[in-house]
Amino acid sequence: MTKRHIYLEDIPLAEARAKLQVALESAGLAAPLAGERIPLSQALGRVTAEPVQAELSSPHFHCAAMDGYAVSAADTVSARETRALSLRLGLDAFPVNTGDALPDGANAVIMIEATNQPDEATIQIYAAAAPWQHVRLMGEDMVATETILQVNHALRPVDLGALAGCGHQTVKVRRKPRVIIIPTGSELVPLNERPARGQLIEYNSLILSSQIREAGAEAHVTEIVGDDDAALRDALAKAAASKPDLILALSGSSAGSHDFTAAAISSLGEVLVHGIAVRPGHPVIIGMAAGTPVIGVPGYPVSAALTGELFVLPLLRAWLGLAARELPVVEAMATRKINSPLGDDDFVRVALAELDGRLQATPLQRGAGVITSLVQADGLAHIPRFHEGVDRGGALTISLYRPLSLIKQTLMIMGSHDPMLDLLATHLRLRRSEQRLVSVNVGSLAGLLALRRGEAHLAGCHLFDPETETYNVPYLQRYLPQEPIELLTFAQREQGLILPAGNPLGIVSIADLRRATYVNRQRGAGTRVLFDHLLTQHQISSAEIAGYEHEEHTHLAVAAAVADGIGDCGMGLRSAAEAMGLDFIGITWERFDLAIPRRHLDTEAMQALLAVLQDDAFKRDLGARSGYRSDETGRTVSQ
Amino acid sequence: MTKRHIYLEDIPLAEARAKLQVALESAGLAAPLAGERIPLSQALGRVTAEPVQAELSSPHFHCAAMDGYAVSAADTVSARETRALSLRLGLDAFPVNTGDALPDGANAVIMIEATNQPDEATIQIYAAAAPWQHVRLMGEDMVATETILQVNHALRPVDLGALAGCGHQTVKVRRKPRVIIIPTGSELVPLNERPARGQLIEYNSLILSSQIREAGAEAHVTEIVGDDDAALRDALAKAAASKPDLILALSGSSAGSHDFTAAAISSLGEVLVHGIAVRPGHPVIIGMAAGTPVIGVPGYPVSAALTGELFVLPLLRAWLGLAARELPVVEAMATRKINSPLGDDDFVRVALAELDGRLQATPLQRGAGVITSLVQADGLAHIPRFHEGVDRGGALTISLYRPLSLIKQTLMIMGSHDPMLDLLATHLRLRRSEQRLVSVNVGSLAGLLALRRGEAHLAGCHLFDPETETYNVPYLQRYLPQEPIELLTFAQREQGLILPAGNPLGIVSIADLRRATYVNRQRGAGTRVLFDHLLTQHQISSAEIAGYEHEEHTHLAVAAAVADGIGDCGMGLRSAAEAMGLDFIGITWERFDLAIPRRHLDTEAMQALLAVLQDDAFKRDLGARSGYRSDETGRTVSQ
Repeated sequence: MTKRHIYLEDIPLAEARAKLQVALESAGLAAPLAGERIPLSQALGRVTAEPVQAELSSPHFHCAAMDGYAVSAADTVSARETRALSLRLGLDAFPVNTGDALPDGANAVIMIEATNQPDEATIQIYAAAAPWQHVRLMGEDMVATETILQVNHALRPVDLGALAGCGHQTVKVRRKPRVIIIPTGSELVPLNERPARGQLIEYNSLILSSQIREAGAEAHVTEIVGDDDAALRDALAKAAASKPDLILALSGSSAGSHDFTAAAISSLGEVLVHGIAVRPGHPVIIGMAAGTPVIGVPGYPVSAALTGELFVLPLLRAWLGLAARELPVVEAMATRKINSPLGDDDFVRVALAELDGRLQATPLQRGAGVITSLVQADGLAHIPRFHEGVDRGGALTISLYRPLSLIKQTLMIMGSHDPMLDLLATHLRLRRSEQRLVSVNVGSLAGLLALRRGEAHLAGCHLFDPETETYNVPYLQRYLPQEPIELLTFAQREQGLILPAGNPLGIVSIADLRRATYVNRQRGAGTRVLFDHLLTQHQISSAEIAGYEHEEHTHLAVAAAVADGIGDCGMGLRSAAEAMGLDFIGITWERFDLAIPRRHLDTEAMQALLAVLQDDAFKRDLGARSGYRSDETGRTVSQ
Repeated sequence: MTKRHIYLEDIPLAEARAKLQVALESAGLAAPLAGERIPLSQALGRVTAEPVQAELSSPHFHCAAMDGYAVSAADTVSARETRALSLRLGLDAFPVNTGDALPDGANAVIMIEATNQPDEATIQIYAAAAPWQHVRLMGEDMVATETILQVNHALRPVDLGALAGCGHQTVKVRRKPRVIIIPTGSELVPLNERPARGQLIEYNSLILSSQIREAGAEAHVTEIVGDDDAALRDALAKAAASKPDLILALSGSSAGSHDFTAAAISSLGEVLVHGIAVRPGHPVIIGMAAGTPVIGVPGYPVSAALTGELFVLPLLRAWLGLAARELPVVEAMATRKINSPLGDDDFVRVALAELDGRLQATPLQRGAGVITSLVQADGLAHIPRFHEGVDRGGALTISLYRPLSLIKQTLMIMGSHDPMLDLLATHLRLRRSEQRLVSVNVGSLAGLLALRRGEAHLAGCHLFDPETETYNVPYLQRYLPQEPIELLTFAQREQGLILPAGNPLGIVSIADLRRATYVNRQRGAGTRVLFDHLLTQHQISSAEIAGYEHEEHTHLAVAAAVADGIGDCGMGLRSAAEAMGLDFIGITWERFDLAIPRRHLDTEAMQALLAVLQDDAFKRDLGARSGYRSDETGRTVSQ
């Protein structure tokens, strides 16, 4: 059993940053780093450490701006349209190509099109040349000694060109900040090892080192250090001895793990901040150890990545002489109520889509352990300290992770979950570069309600109506009577009972579920509607089903719960059972449709999606999957 | 003399792109490139070549979400706040840290804060545990077989983390497109050689290879090939033989140079496009040589860089499976009239600034040889084919090269040119990261008029008023009577005659200019006002001054013109003369002031600028420059 720590002293984000800044300033570590001279060929993306002046003028001589003949303007004054003037080649007129230096004495160029050449040695001209006509004067682009680039400027391709063009072969750039990353936690294994039960793959160092490299700094990751005071102190001391600009100590997942970091920093220096009122991310530690700034990064991956964005990257940019990166910001409408802890700066990952001209934000899973919420996020909504959150329909201020132009083309599908929607997304993306189909799994019924509220471009549903023994159409009539809907079949899918491998309880029918623990789907899910219908058919009350209250949100989650012994049985897709190596007893084939409000049909994105549904390659791919039939895929369902 | 070519067949941009696309499709080269498997540690920024599914669930076991005790919920049902239930450690309750696997049989975690430990072997609890409370279920983040990333996705730090977290050590990414760049032109020297008169430094290959690397592709630059049919054909054939995805043949500066490229492509395949109706950039060539696409890139650097943006980068992105990059677009108001050729898509580099809430665009130098116009550009205004341009005050659609947040903080100074404004910009930037001071040199008077029209945040001026024998104040009263202005002295500067080294004509005073060729400044420039005043004092008419009509726009340009023999003398700053190694005869010390409309004073950016003007380090730096005095720097001029 390790030490345990209860956080009492979380301080606001701004205060934590200020404390770090004061500590850096008093240690003389707040200024941009010194410069180093490197060849231009290696300087892309590096940051100038001083202003750069032109060494040479460009062009560094007067040169022809046209193909033609260089002349002295004074020699041409008598030329008239009605009286050609002859000039002797090599004496009065010199052939030049664009870019050629003017011969001595020449101060104008006559375009070749304005001349006539009666013989090898002569040209004729029909107008006087003005001095300096068609001449690029020396220094037109850059004059020697002129400032070409400012200090603290990140070098782009054209900047390198300009530097080369005015005579530079090297440039003095800020030294790259050097960061040492120490992953800690006895439960962690490196990513090239398979984790045993109780072990976790250590990947926060991959996220943070990638963030650091992307920011133009160097990252060195040490071996994983176990939860051991002395070992961590030694690792920290060794890292500090190599004089990096920054050390990141990545905590393991346990709450106590942070205390090892704090203790190790204390033993070598001072802990300045222990706990920041930021969600997700609380247990950030900031300190100085042996003269080096140290940031203790929380173990949950979302917290770790956000700590990188909020603390590490601004620090690196300051050392490079750059302002903190400001992501583009948009306003969007929340599609759900978001509760925020009053005392924290809350950073909520959201999926974004534009519907009916409004940008709408759907919060993604809030758990700090769900790295996929950051993978899927289009942006980060910041709900400041002392705000309780926003209501559905309220305004959110969102920093964008993706270009708005991509977001505006995103198709948002809400409703029932089907793993083959990912296959649809893949085919869509192969047809239309970077076209995204973002799937928010809320269940069939909630998907139709999302259409009604204008929160999704389309909804996936497989809602069985026992009265008419049909799918979906009665529900559209009930829930979306005003909305003209195009209803297209996506697939026929096999639903049934997902059972542990070998079916240890010998379950063969719905009736057997009385003696098993069931894993259910959430209210409004088509699979739950189907299950309730089957219970009614078998005259079983839901109270007789143990685990009926345990709700999972996707087929794969149900299968995972069965695989891991949370329940003995669940209802779901054959594909989900097979993916997890589980047994499956087929009960029925059902129709999964896509409901698309007609007003969303005309976009390029939706037209691409409709084209995929008609595409034979897609249908073949879909129909080849176990538990799927695609013979009706793309067919319009009459309503 | 080389072959000459007159372009008759420029085709529209869209048509050129379509021709290339058709050729690529018929050669089977239009699809995204094949995949290659690489370690995650090398995959940042690479693009997935297939969708990626989770190998392992994450977490891959049920684990504690809190530090505390793992229990079986069923064992805890009798616990009440009023009647503690004792659990035996190691038998009924197991200490767990966040992230630890639940022991067999456990299905809930009780937080340590909710327990009491009367002795070493026992804990007491005061409430029943709900099944799965404080437990992170297996697969909460990712379920094995679930799609984690789509195909054609550029990998970010969090994506790499997610891949590692679900058991991947490698990822299949698109092969990097490989581009061979062949610089051509007998007048070119590589950037590590000093160019002789008539030679130019070849730096277009540096710009294009940097653009290509930035886009995630590989660039290989060959040696420079002279203007020689056979040599270029051989170089092209050799490049094609190594099977790159693309060859870029960079033309030299002469118009005829393109014909070598076209001829070489023809001899190995086919020229599809020769000349595109784009400005700048006309002579782009597109063809296929020995089965490889070839783009002939124009020689002028702005044309070359824009050809990279318009043709090369979209092609590379398509091969990587990505959509063409769309820069953020804004609308801005033109501060000048812009004339565009009717038949061309015209791309105009602009400087942007926000004034009085409006974004304003000032066109930069239009010449295709002026690479600094791209260095300075905040964005590119696209004036489409069949548009004649825009009037002053008209709306421009601009693709942004810099973040809008930076642009909005830019201080725009118009008016007189002084090289020390660059020093001011440097000190400003060291004080406030990435703060820009954009200087547009229009002359003192035009600067005041720009203030009147609300086009600049401040203006630099040194306008001598002969009547009152004072600087600037009478002009403010005349031209900006309605505008409250803060007038601050920037520096005292020494003006005089700039003469060739050794003063061959023996000029000692203004009167001697009657026997010299003069290099003048543009109308409205303070230096011209001063010169005209001096002529009046000496009773010289401007008609007596040869070269009076030759106008340059900066002190350095005047000095460069004198250095290069365009004229025998010019009027300008001591600093400009010394920068070019020229002689100088001092005539007067003048006051250069900054005029700032009071309504612009309150921004953070302007406050930083005012602070620099009061900063002793800046004043010392300025005062140490030859021809400058800073004892009045930052002083308010009473009006």
